Amino acid sequence: MPLTQGTMTNPNADRVRRIAELTRAKTRRKVGRMLVEAPQAVREAVTFHPERVEDVYIAIDEDGNTVSARAAEIAAYIMGHKDECGGIYVHYVTQRVMDAISGDAQGIAAVASTKGMAGRLADFAAGGDNDVDGRRGPLTIAAFWQVRDPGNAGTVIRTADAAGADAVVFVDDCVDPLGPKVVRSTAGSLFHIPVLRASVDELFAWNADHNASVLAADVRGTGDLKPVPLPELLAAEPKDDAHTSRSILFGNEARGLDDDILERCDGIVSIPIYGKAESLNLATSAAVLLYSLAMSSHVGKM
Amino acid sequence: MPLTQGTMTNPNADRVRRIAELTRAKTRRKVGRMLVEAPQAVREAVTFHPERVEDVYIAIDEDGNTVSARAAEIAAYIMGHKDECGGIYVHYVTQRVMDAISGDAQGIAAVASTKGMAGRLADFAAGGDNDVDGRRGPLTIAAFWQVRDPGNAGTVIRTADAAGADAVVFVDDCVDPLGPKVVRSTAGSLFHIPVLRASVDELFAWNADHNASVLAADVRGTGDLKPVPLPELLAAEPKDDAHTSRSILFGNEARGLDDDILERCDGIVSIPIYGKAESLNLATSAAVLLYSLAMSSHVGKM
Repeated sequence: MPLTQGTMTNPNADRVRRIAELTRAKTRRKVGRMLVEAPQAVREAVTFHPERVEDVYIAIDEDGNTVSARAAEIAAYIMGHKDECGGIYVHYVTQRVMDAISGDAQGIAAVASTKGMAGRLADFAAGGDNDVDGRRGPLTIAAFWQVRDPGNAGTVIRTADAAGADAVVFVDDCVDPLGPKVVRSTAGSLFHIPVLRASVDELFAWNADHNASVLAADVRGTGDLKPVPLPELLAAEPKDDAHTSRSILFGNEARGLDDDILERCDGIVSIPIYGKAESLNLATSAAVLLYSLAMSSHVGKM
Repeated sequence: MPLTQGTMTNPNADRVRRIAELTRAKTRRKVGRMLVEAPQAVREAVTFHPERVEDVYIAIDEDGNTVSARAAEIAAYIMGHKDECGGIYVHYVTQRVMDAISGDAQGIAAVASTKGMAGRLADFAAGGDNDVDGRRGPLTIAAFWQVRDPGNAGTVIRTADAAGADAVVFVDDCVDPLGPKVVRSTAGSLFHIPVLRASVDELFAWNADHNASVLAADVRGTGDLKPVPLPELLAAEPKDDAHTSRSILFGNEARGLDDDILERCDGIVSIPIYGKAESLNLATSAAVLLYSLAMSSHVGKM
């Protein structure tokens, strides 16, 4: 079978070991590359940022057939888009080699450059993909302070993307947004929307510089700053583009937001609990809040 | 230390083995008991359904002190509520015994009767906790067809509880809602809200019998039944109690809802995607939809 010519068969090869090492944050930082696993994430990377993708690894069986039909479609897409994808090298590998690369590849994995990914919020207006000036109307930024769980981190990036946010900012000491589990949980959204990093000070400085307000999601509030229930906030939303840019800031999964951060925000919003649940988890809170505000804004523009 | 008198120290004891076996659905069905792990779930079980709780196991260290401060609070609550909690037996166990009971106990676990839990939707109006007649106004039922992932299942139960739904129904072949991972993911909501089971036919029969409509969450629709975008649905919601009872039906994580189910629904609603994400996951869809409808309904009543 022609496909098997040059197939990578050695799971102990140096190249395989180097790819597998990209699961470690330290290695990713050192070599400036990341691992993208499974058809959905690889397809979105190849479609939206082919210039970042260096190598694609596709598992084939003993007869030389691609193990995953979706992987075969991605290979065909790359071959059919020479202009955009000319820099991508497609490798066929045995299942044993794929298993050595990643246990979560579902037949396809890619190595991509981390250049231009997970940059600083301060550079968001500095051109390129992150060019804030190319975006229309007021911006919505979804900001997460000390998000620690990779699954949560990926899910909130996906939710922010779906809700039409202009960027996601991981504030302070968060999980690395380029880690494999985060990437998988974003279902490709990592390649749709700028995901940036900032310190707490950088977050507030950026918002001040861009005439943007910071709205914290918190049930308690602090001192004189008490939360406004979300339905009240929605009822008071301007039904046109009159509102300015805004960052919605969510706290850590367990601790929420510290008081000294809440005190610096322009407002606090709480999601009402109508039943007996004590609280909502981070991903649920982000879904409810980001979507409510997005729907309110879009309905206003209709 | 008095606390250590009678402490369970043998991780190989028959009782310990029997508790650990409750992680298996088959054993739960056979013995009619379930395992409740970690402080939040145990506290909610003891607070909302003490009559279901048979035994509580609390880990103590070598000095006889309770390992978890939250577990100690629960023990104090049980001692202080003899009327409600008189039937609960509290056992102190070594950490090794607790590890043999559960790797996810965080210092406390309970064994509860499954009687009255995860019953049939058809019995929802039959009195007791599930007495539909004791509920006021139109009912909102959150129904999930073939939900398979335990974490998803628990999260959607928690979300439905927070959004004030009157019950959760697992339709057709779903994950067992009494499994340990589901229970943990509900964060106690399993003990706040009736969680019921139904076949597809039972779901539609119950809704027909109760003059309730079935609204499917789906992006595609089928045949002549096309989805209404959620913002349009919200704009058309009656701003009083004029609407009747309603079941919101969500599909399987990967497959969504089958066409033959969609065709039986009274309406279909889709959540708009404002960004480039291809879809939302089940838990996010449930959060956005259940909360939007709940907020709309509650604002209408204000």
